[in-house]
Amino acid sequence: MNIDFNADMGESFGMYVMGNDEKFMKYITSANVACGFHAGDPTVMKKTVALAKQYGVQVGAHPGLPDLQGFGRRAMNLTMEEIHDDMVYQVGALRAFVEAAGLKLHHVKPHGSLYGMAMQREEVAKAICQAVLDVDKSLYLYIMKKGFAGPVAESMGLRVVYELYADLDYDGDGNLVITRHHDVRKPEEVAARVIRMVREGKVKTTKGTEIAIEGTSVCLHSDTANASDIVAAVRKELEKAGYPVVAPKL
Amino acid sequence: MNIDFNADMGESFGMYVMGNDEKFMKYITSANVACGFHAGDPTVMKKTVALAKQYGVQVGAHPGLPDLQGFGRRAMNLTMEEIHDDMVYQVGALRAFVEAAGLKLHHVKPHGSLYGMAMQREEVAKAICQAVLDVDKSLYLYIMKKGFAGPVAESMGLRVVYELYADLDYDGDGNLVITRHHDVRKPEEVAARVIRMVREGKVKTTKGTEIAIEGTSVCLHSDTANASDIVAAVRKELEKAGYPVVAPKL
Amino acid sequence: MNIDFNADMGESFGMYVMGNDEKFMKYITSANVACGFHAGDPTVMKKTVALAKQYGVQVGAHPGLPDLQGFGRRAMNLTMEEIHDDMVYQVGALRAFVEAAGLKLHHVKPHGSLYGMAMQREEVAKAICQAVLDVDKSLYLYIMKKGFAGPVAESMGLRVVYELYADLDYDGDGNLVITRHHDVRKPEEVAARVIRMVREGKVKTTKGTEIAIEGTSVCLHSDTANASDIVAAVRKELEKAGYPVVAPKL
Amino acid sequence: MNIDFNADMGESFGMYVMGNDEKFMKYITSANVACGFHAGDPTVMKKTVALAKQYGVQVGAHPGLPDLQGFGRRAMNLTMEEIHDDMVYQVGALRAFVEAAGLKLHHVKPHGSLYGMAMQREEVAKAICQAVLDVDKSLYLYIMKKGFAGPVAESMGLRVVYELYADLDYDGDGNLVITRHHDVRKPEEVAARVIRMVREGKVKTTKGTEIAIEGTSVCLHSDTANASDIVAAVRKELEKAGYPVVAPKL
Repeated sequence: MNIDFNADMGESFGMYVMGNDEKFMKYITSANVACGFHAGDPTVMKKTVALAKQYGVQVGAHPGLPDLQGFGRRAMNLTMEEIHDDMVYQVGALRAFVEAAGLKLHHVKPHGSLYGMAMQREEVAKAICQAVLDVDKSLYLYIMKKGFAGPVAESMGLRVVYELYADLDYDGDGNLVITRHHDVRKPEEVAARVIRMVREGKVKTTKGTEIAIEGTSVCLHSDTANASDIVAAVRKELEKAGYPVVAPKL
Repeated sequence: MNIDFNADMGESFGMYVMGNDEKFMKYITSANVACGFHAGDPTVMKKTVALAKQYGVQVGAHPGLPDLQGFGRRAMNLTMEEIHDDMVYQVGALRAFVEAAGLKLHHVKPHGSLYGMAMQREEVAKAICQAVLDVDKSLYLYIMKKGFAGPVAESMGLRVVYELYADLDYDGDGNLVITRHHDVRKPEEVAARVIRMVREGKVKTTKGTEIAIEGTSVCLHSDTANASDIVAAVRKELEKAGYPVVAPKL
Repeated sequence: MNIDFNADMGESFGMYVMGNDEKFMKYITSANVACGFHAGDPTVMKKTVALAKQYGVQVGAHPGLPDLQGFGRRAMNLTMEEIHDDMVYQVGALRAFVEAAGLKLHHVKPHGSLYGMAMQREEVAKAICQAVLDVDKSLYLYIMKKGFAGPVAESMGLRVVYELYADLDYDGDGNLVITRHHDVRKPEEVAARVIRMVREGKVKTTKGTEIAIEGTSVCLHSDTANASDIVAAVRKELEKAGYPVVAPKL
Repeated sequence: MNIDFNADMGESFGMYVMGNDEKFMKYITSANVACGFHAGDPTVMKKTVALAKQYGVQVGAHPGLPDLQGFGRRAMNLTMEEIHDDMVYQVGALRAFVEAAGLKLHHVKPHGSLYGMAMQREEVAKAICQAVLDVDKSLYLYIMKKGFAGPVAESMGLRVVYELYADLDYDGDGNLVITRHHDVRKPEEVAARVIRMVREGKVKTTKGTEIAIEGTSVCLHSDTANASDIVAAVRKELEKAGYPVVAPKL
């Protein structure tokens, strides 16, 4: 079984820099590129696609809510039609840069509140999946195996890649504990945790309990202080354990 | 020789309504659809594409400067890279809606200040044409046969459709006199003027002089009070004179 | 007892026109002027203040959520700090135009979702009232007498003006039925309904039931087709019944 | 003669951090706070005002063009009315936070392209000065003594504070050489240059020539790598030379 490393990329905006794309791109196998609504702008998108191409990283669209100030993390009460249309717009815009670079768009991963809403509300999951299908039926949807998004996507015929979170905690209900800044963690501990998720399908929650977990793509964040140490350790342990780190086939 | 009728469409935004798309779409053969920077939003774009499809109208992208408040009419000092990237983004976004509707994107026409800058500055013309090529080499560029855009586009291998303006005046230098509101004009006078532009390649300017003019697509505006009378009169006279009103072939 | 007529004004944005401010301003006694987040822009604000001054209408700030596309009607999950700060910003911006025109700011009325959130969530009511206090303790808060906003405002020492809605329906729970477009209503029926609300403190709901209602400012909308007939009829009946139509004293 | 140290502050936006406000505020005597158009948001503004208060720093408004992506550095062809109104709006918004903090607004300094346009075009200088007067006649205008802004401001009765740039170069025409990133400079060299500007009214340009220069406020940038060393050195030399570092009196 192959394991994919995905990370959010292209989150800078105009003069504002966010993340460490230049440094982190080489460690991952697929990049979730912001599309200009919650982060990113056209020039940042073009450059991020070029950087991914340079390192042979698959490019996915990372569309978010239309709220730059809130970074797409403040829930907004959009209609299902608005969610669908905002997705088509953003994925289409990124696809143009990907194809202009001679590549093919690989996947879609909703960002922030949109990601959460996709798991929690069936109608949102449907709107998002329909948007992906409307742009390109062969795109992967990246999502956690929890809540509505996975089953909805599978029933609608989308190819789904389930995610494991390496550097965020799961709470007692199996939800992610989102933090504004990502804490430094010991690389070997993160690696051990990922190995366990992959091999045993289990992870320890912040409550001390254990929950079942399933996925083939490990999500990592570029802005943890020791991000490159973490990703190197996880990759090394995965490869040692017989899991090649490779993106899902285009 | 066929003559095309193009008009700007999809300029509403959220709750704000602009133009008379529902009423005017049936009179034209190609629609320039706003892409969300100077006007339009994702839902407006989707609905405008659906309306064009309903009437068999070809759909083009109408990208503009990133300035909703100024409606893309306030010149902005973007870099050539920003112009290129803003174009790719917008054209890509619209293309996604066009393809989701089972259609193929037909053309690109820059909006407002971007249109003017394309005629006046060679480097802008190049940036715009490169963006169109980067998205799809088969797209038509709609532009006036004046200034840099036409020759640059032709030399770069783009298919160009030259425009004639039916309901705007040309000043002594052959530039358009842009007005905030479009005056009511006598339909038969507009029709006679268009016939003369098409047949004789001449038009009278606001200075009373005559200038040479060339084009195969007539641009019309949906928000003139008697817009439908004008477009009907122009079409009738063109067809009487042996010019079928048809969009350039996809 | 005096009765005030308030209406939302200054909701145009750039080239986009909304409402009939020019025509409707003369019928009202206090104007709620949009502040650039959900509608309005600086030039629209300045012109709206000038128009209010021309007709001797009191000027209030009408701040909304930062969502122009959604017109401030899509609930957003802002923090209490963000709500407070977004209010201070918008009220301060409008106040500058009011004072530049030689007037004094009269009141604050939250717009759309912000108005609804102020009634439904105590913490939001507190954040909003604190923002008003932080800008100017003498400002009136316009709000419905229902839910948290009124009691919170009174307990925090704000001067409160309760609103009655003339041209919108109340549902069985006493909440407003918000519609995208305002229906034409018979002026004499609206007038009778307002008289009853003012004199008897009662109104019939869409369920056919009766609820208690209390207020001294009647909110009217400028974009109903027969808005000026309605406002004229309501004023005539109120004055006949002994209620002068006058804004709350500055 | 007192010398003032001013710096641009509050340029972060939402999750995006810019500058080193926390660290740099203690070194300056007046802060130019971004007002939400080219940078800053309401919460950033409030926090920046609080930080200035903590260090006894005078607070000025730093309004810019409505272009967050371009950071207010891309010239935009606004009408004089739009420039005036955009200024009143932003200065009014910031003033609300300043007064809510129990302070009084001290000055206005236009940002980026707006600053440049104020020096180069008389009509822009007038629009900007009128806006400052319309908000509060007692506000200082911070500007370079070059071009139209100074004379216009003085003739319109504004109090003007002329600026000297410590960490940017002047070109042969006396214009600033604006760079995206501010180079590390030797603190003692910057200090010597400032002393010479203050005492002799002269500065060396990038052409090697000398030009006359006049001013009482030194502008410094917080994002140079050794910014705090520079500001400490400049202050030390100024005080040694008998120039107290103090903001202009409120």
